[in-house]
Amino acid sequence: MSVELVKNAVGRMVPTEINGKPAVPFQGVGNYQPEGRIHAPKIVSCADYPQDGNKQVESLKAALIKAGLSDGMTISTHHHFRNGDLIAVQIFKIAQELGVKDLIWFPSAAFPCQEEIIEQLENGTIHHIEGSLNGPLGEFASQGKMCGTGVLRSHGGRYQAVQDGEVEIDIAVIASPTADSFGNANGVDGPSACGLLGFALVDSEYADKVIVVTDNLIPFPCIPWQIQGNHVDYVVEVEQIGLPERIVSGTTKITKSPDRLHIAELTARFCEEAELVRDGFSFQAGAGGTSLSIGNFFGEIMRRKGIKARFARGGSNKYLVEMLEEGLIEYLLDGQTFDLDGVRSLRENPHHVNTSPFTSYNYHGKGNFAGLVDIVILGATEVDLDFNANVVTHSDGKLLHGIGGWQNCLFGKNVILPVPLFRNRIPVICDEVTTICGPGELIDIIVTERGIAINPRRTDLIEKMKNSNLPIRTIRELKEEAEHICGIPAKPEFSEKIISAVKWVDGTVLDIVRQIKE
Amino acid sequence: MSVELVKNAVGRMVPTEINGKPAVPFQGVGNYQPEGRIHAPKIVSCADYPQDGNKQVESLKAALIKAGLSDGMTISTHHHFRNGDLIAVQIFKIAQELGVKDLIWFPSAAFPCQEEIIEQLENGTIHHIEGSLNGPLGEFASQGKMCGTGVLRSHGGRYQAVQDGEVEIDIAVIASPTADSFGNANGVDGPSACGLLGFALVDSEYADKVIVVTDNLIPFPCIPWQIQGNHVDYVVEVEQIGLPERIVSGTTKITKSPDRLHIAELTARFCEEAELVRDGFSFQAGAGGTSLSIGNFFGEIMRRKGIKARFARGGSNKYLVEMLEEGLIEYLLDGQTFDLDGVRSLRENPHHVNTSPFTSYNYHGKGNFAGLVDIVILGATEVDLDFNANVVTHSDGKLLHGIGGWQNCLFGKNVILPVPLFRNRIPVICDEVTTICGPGELIDIIVTERGIAINPRRTDLIEKMKNSNLPIRTIRELKEEAEHICGIPAKPEFSEKIISAVKWVDGTVLDIVRQIKE
Repeated sequence: MSVELVKNAVGRMVPTEINGKPAVPFQGVGNYQPEGRIHAPKIVSCADYPQDGNKQVESLKAALIKAGLSDGMTISTHHHFRNGDLIAVQIFKIAQELGVKDLIWFPSAAFPCQEEIIEQLENGTIHHIEGSLNGPLGEFASQGKMCGTGVLRSHGGRYQAVQDGEVEIDIAVIASPTADSFGNANGVDGPSACGLLGFALVDSEYADKVIVVTDNLIPFPCIPWQIQGNHVDYVVEVEQIGLPERIVSGTTKITKSPDRLHIAELTARFCEEAELVRDGFSFQAGAGGTSLSIGNFFGEIMRRKGIKARFARGGSNKYLVEMLEEGLIEYLLDGQTFDLDGVRSLRENPHHVNTSPFTSYNYHGKGNFAGLVDIVILGATEVDLDFNANVVTHSDGKLLHGIGGWQNCLFGKNVILPVPLFRNRIPVICDEVTTICGPGELIDIIVTERGIAINPRRTDLIEKMKNSNLPIRTIRELKEEAEHICGIPAKPEFSEKIISAVKWVDGTVLDIVRQIKE
Repeated sequence: MSVELVKNAVGRMVPTEINGKPAVPFQGVGNYQPEGRIHAPKIVSCADYPQDGNKQVESLKAALIKAGLSDGMTISTHHHFRNGDLIAVQIFKIAQELGVKDLIWFPSAAFPCQEEIIEQLENGTIHHIEGSLNGPLGEFASQGKMCGTGVLRSHGGRYQAVQDGEVEIDIAVIASPTADSFGNANGVDGPSACGLLGFALVDSEYADKVIVVTDNLIPFPCIPWQIQGNHVDYVVEVEQIGLPERIVSGTTKITKSPDRLHIAELTARFCEEAELVRDGFSFQAGAGGTSLSIGNFFGEIMRRKGIKARFARGGSNKYLVEMLEEGLIEYLLDGQTFDLDGVRSLRENPHHVNTSPFTSYNYHGKGNFAGLVDIVILGATEVDLDFNANVVTHSDGKLLHGIGGWQNCLFGKNVILPVPLFRNRIPVICDEVTTICGPGELIDIIVTERGIAINPRRTDLIEKMKNSNLPIRTIRELKEEAEHICGIPAKPEFSEKIISAVKWVDGTVLDIVRQIKE
């Protein structure tokens, strides 16, 4: 535990080694120059694959054995089934049964439905998890119980890490709602349809062995092929890969809370007055109640003004799909589908477009889509006076959320965090965030129910809004008001043990999360 | 010129070095085991690309200069415009103007419209061409006038060569009928629509610098993105990228020649009697008159029997599109569009699917589509008694054709060559083909107007057809009949100089082409 800590460009002390591998401290946005070449998979030959293209094997266990499952390997899965995944837990139960140890689980995100995996974390089957730790697994890690150090990455950071060879995936298991025996697969058809499979794209491209698991095997060709069979080694047919009712949340609804509705309305009015909502604009809202409501307000503005958006970014949901179908949005560039309307639309509407962390978020590419979005609506658990924000830990210090696409979206042209001024009488705006997930220089506007703060760097927006009737205030004023109402809460206490690193989009270490003192 | 020649697995003497790089002799189908890792491009960073995603530069010349065009570089282009391309010639005129020397031109195919490039071949701007040499450029090479040695590859072999790092592309120029300023591009929209851009896929993925040139620049996002802007460095808007009337041939018509119609009918009858045409089957026919006619006969059989094909492979054309729209074919997996019906269908019909040499033909992948096709119809200039076939040289020894997807398609389940017994009184079936492009073990059936020869390896087919009324004969009988009619023509005479190598799908050297003696 004598890893050297150094101060990075946002003033956080971060390790220069994580899980025995060297780590580079964050050097400031855009300052880190990567060297070398991307990860190059081994050259394979068709001569070693079935000439008739049929790669089916009899079971997941058989496929894992054929793929050479053994100690210390890195095993990846995707989270398009969200809380309805039935495959990840099976993989590690099989590994345990086979006596395999010290695996690294590299999911695109973990969910509460995978809580059972704590058994394999405790018995040494899994050494550690690299991926977002939501809910019970975050709690487990926060208590310092995980062997290795967690590594939190954004969706784009996960693509970057694999592409750059920071994480070498030995076996990728891609649960797929529809597939053919060649390994072409998609998420739009079949009883477990989840919409996209984009989070598994990088796994399919770079993993040494790729296993497609499906409960809807169809004759070649499986069209569309979101995952290309040319990357796939084995195909397994199983009874069920996911619980449909949990795959799509189904409960994604516009907020009814008066405070949140007020924040949404303030946000929309700000965007209209600042002329960010204009013909041909683009926006990305999330799937939370407030964000959905903001999207709805954008729709009203567009109808009133007779304008339309060139594109919106998903997570898609029925509200975005309705706007697409109404013609308010020309293209819906989707990264994951949050409900069945999203799945249907993606399947049927050529203007509803399948994207991936490669197109949208990979920072080590020749550009990505994130920078092209005019208005980006994001959440935060905490924001500090320099506009730095936190999304992974709560003010109590517990690691309970993943980063998702949040860091990547910060590169949008106008990044807005609509947040309540306080939650459970704990101010959201504070002197110093528990964990820095996004540098303040990339965050432009904070909207709360009691006022809107514009980042002083955005002199253009400050100038534009100087005669506005909206409650424009400084972030310090907002913080003081929150503290006036709630008081200053006690800071959580931490042990020395680093339970997780928080990577920036370029693979450098932005911050760490420590074990909480009980 | 003292390169060592060794005898390869089909008995041809081939060099162990080509253009100063080591070359591996053909070792037999499926016998060569590649080693090492695929070519890994340099890691790049979004920090070095415009944050708003606008990569437009003012001209092709400016883009080439920004891309660092300099002596000895490898420059690639695609051939989706076929004989209507207006960009390749411009590139090398600019290079000449800039005084750049010794370039390697790496097109996916060259066409007669690029004849002007002979000037740059003669003045040292271009050292040699690696790519199929059709028409005047083939003639130029056959006369021994090209500085370096040509390298002929199949479409799949071209993908393999780039993927494996045998050819490192410095600058790829991708002429695109529609694009946005981020570099997303497609071939289905715009005044120069050519259908697909799949031949440029590998260039976009692996080239150091990628330039998209378009005459139809649209606002982001360009949907569909057959080329992904995340691979693109620069975007150039020009007046015109291709001559529409030459992009699609427009004259692809079913043969009216009685002999060819007879061959087509024999082929179709063979396929029906051998039960290759059955419900759910798949086929790939080419765009030649005979092949189109065979496709038509397949349509008649399907209608009569009330069956349909699960998929057909394109080159798409109006006949295949009609069958798709009639419901005789469920999916059309297309590699290039040969007419405007193909372009329209690809744009509009989700069952008309964009494929690439990666999905279809790359032999150094985890399988490819070629092996999944039940009936494959191909041409040949010559076939020998061992069923070895030639597609690149004529019996007069001149190099006049590229390999295209021909070698790759040989991996289909039933490979049929419908060929006339003789052309211009020169037998097609001979003792020894001028150039071996495909090993006979992969060629199953030869259909001529005077009889059908089944490869003795296909005992299953011989057994199945033993009571057929079709004129089943041995290949020797066919050869003797041809010679009886035409006599045995004089062999062409060659100089020592090797003007081109013929690669197999795995990158090994299958044969060579020598300069002809005038």
